[in-house]
Amino acid sequence: MQVDISLKKIEDRSYTIFIEPIEKIRNLSKAVIVTNPKVAGLHLGYLLPKIEASELYIVTLPDGEDYKNEQALNYLLERLFDHKIDRKSTLIAFGGGVIGDMTGFAAAIYQRGIDFIQIPTTLLSQVDASVGGKTGINNRFGKNLIGAFHQPKAVYIDTHFLTTLPQREFAAGVAEIVKMAVVFDKEFFAWLEEHDLYEEEHLKYAIKRSVELKAAIVAKDEREGGMRASLNYGHTFAHVIENETNYKRFLHGEAVAIGMVMANELAKLMDLMSQEDAQRVKTLLEKYNLPTCYEIKDVDSFYEHFFLDKKTQADKIKFVLPRGVGDFVITDSVPKERVFEALKRFTRC
Amino acid sequence: MQVDISLKKIEDRSYTIFIEPIEKIRNLSKAVIVTNPKVAGLHLGYLLPKIEASELYIVTLPDGEDYKNEQALNYLLERLFDHKIDRKSTLIAFGGGVIGDMTGFAAAIYQRGIDFIQIPTTLLSQVDASVGGKTGINNRFGKNLIGAFHQPKAVYIDTHFLTTLPQREFAAGVAEIVKMAVVFDKEFFAWLEEHDLYEEEHLKYAIKRSVELKAAIVAKDEREGGMRASLNYGHTFAHVIENETNYKRFLHGEAVAIGMVMANELAKLMDLMSQEDAQRVKTLLEKYNLPTCYEIKDVDSFYEHFFLDKKTQADKIKFVLPRGVGDFVITDSVPKERVFEALKRFTRC
Repeated sequence: MQVDISLKKIEDRSYTIFIEPIEKIRNLSKAVIVTNPKVAGLHLGYLLPKIEASELYIVTLPDGEDYKNEQALNYLLERLFDHKIDRKSTLIAFGGGVIGDMTGFAAAIYQRGIDFIQIPTTLLSQVDASVGGKTGINNRFGKNLIGAFHQPKAVYIDTHFLTTLPQREFAAGVAEIVKMAVVFDKEFFAWLEEHDLYEEEHLKYAIKRSVELKAAIVAKDEREGGMRASLNYGHTFAHVIENETNYKRFLHGEAVAIGMVMANELAKLMDLMSQEDAQRVKTLLEKYNLPTCYEIKDVDSFYEHFFLDKKTQADKIKFVLPRGVGDFVITDSVPKERVFEALKRFTRC
Repeated sequence: MQVDISLKKIEDRSYTIFIEPIEKIRNLSKAVIVTNPKVAGLHLGYLLPKIEASELYIVTLPDGEDYKNEQALNYLLERLFDHKIDRKSTLIAFGGGVIGDMTGFAAAIYQRGIDFIQIPTTLLSQVDASVGGKTGINNRFGKNLIGAFHQPKAVYIDTHFLTTLPQREFAAGVAEIVKMAVVFDKEFFAWLEEHDLYEEEHLKYAIKRSVELKAAIVAKDEREGGMRASLNYGHTFAHVIENETNYKRFLHGEAVAIGMVMANELAKLMDLMSQEDAQRVKTLLEKYNLPTCYEIKDVDSFYEHFFLDKKTQADKIKFVLPRGVGDFVITDSVPKERVFEALKRFTRC
């Protein structure tokens, strides 16, 4: 005897990313702004008059990746219960990637899911975390190991918040923009070579284009499958670099910048990329003072670290390698010797 | 400037509920059976030879609703990391509702979601928890307040496991079967009046019919909206009874049995149900030795408790009231006096 449960249906989780100064966010019932003390001090005065909610609460969480953990998540969830947040309420993530990931995850599991809005305040979270629906926390086993896919109801990208962003963090965001261009869009890459992102209008266009490119990928592959893996260009190497340096020395975007240069070396050895294209990428990264080298002390150990990544299954490493500029291949059949050859080029910076 | 993120797509989370002796569960890669010590001792010997997985682990969690909490969830998640469970692995929930809810929630948030299979071992979890995709844990603010919707890949209902189920727990499961019949299906109700569920073949048919009825509702309303609320018949009252007795005196199904009788009293006062139909429901429940009365000590206090339910918004109580047998109404406009009148009939048992 059997019963077939039919759950095939059209799901619509579409939303809009607004890349413009926030005017009003209207018609919220209960809402909670989740932010950190620094962003709150700098920008709540700007945001608060723009929010129209029947009740509004503000919860601050400690700043930084070290606090993207279960304790902070539970602290947030408890505040939501204190304020009797119900299923029609909305959480507003107001901060960088850490705030976005934790707020999104809290929204995913609070009473089995409530709405959330993202107002990312760093360039990295504006171009990266605002598309894809990934939410989660870290634990002692690694990063983002507990989480859910939960799409926001809307994202507001307001470059006003970037006026207080330190230069290094700005550049880290640019690294993700460059990544999108190298992998998907050679015209956009050429545009980046010719335009200065310190200019407001250029920056807005670059954010828009990055978001569009990522959205196109995510629409095809909402969960992690084939295409979405292409977003990991530079990241396979970056994760090892971040791991070896205990996530202290480099910002994520900086590690990605180095990771892209490393991936390009491997792409060159595999005859996928010309020296000239590799140099164009490096030059663009250096224009924003991004690091492009990391001195590998022990090539064997660096190689072993690839296998700690949760996306690396069993004994195969999946590399995203650019094919020139504007195209890519995903391959798990790079000979170990080739990888070593590429890594050895980084034993001296 | 804005970017519209289009996430409208056909999602297929369909699965099959098998109501028959388990033969083989094949082709699993890594799998983890999550169970409790009691079920493990009684039934792992029966289950293990039927599971074909490349690697198989067993994790036991403490038994009972008191342990459906964050600590037990974290303990489970940590074991999954210990065993390097990956995104292609499968969790197998082997136990009653508590094991099903916790295992399902762990599967929902482990690396943003992995597969799980349900093998419910109580009658209640076979007819109730196996359809609907609700997963979650309790916390100090209430029951199931943290959770997610996550559908299983398959459900195996094997009445073999019921041979060791205490009579009271069996009856608690029957209460949910009766609930489905009263609300949705008068022919099924009449069938229940005429057939003895202690007989294997009748029991299997009753499980199948209950599961079909619930599946039809859930398919229309996967998340909690209008129709799905009809499943709360008896529950609005049951939650208060369980709360007043600290979840100690009655099993959930027993509280639901009393709750249905209370809802019927209110339905009678609202001219929705005849005395005769109310008596038929009561007689059927009593046939399985289910309680049908709870002595309300303080009607005011009982009434106030309605508002603690997470499904009760603001100052309106939503009642699911039967319209005869086999139909229902959902209403939030029952006059307070009517509710008091119904409750007063239970100040003495």
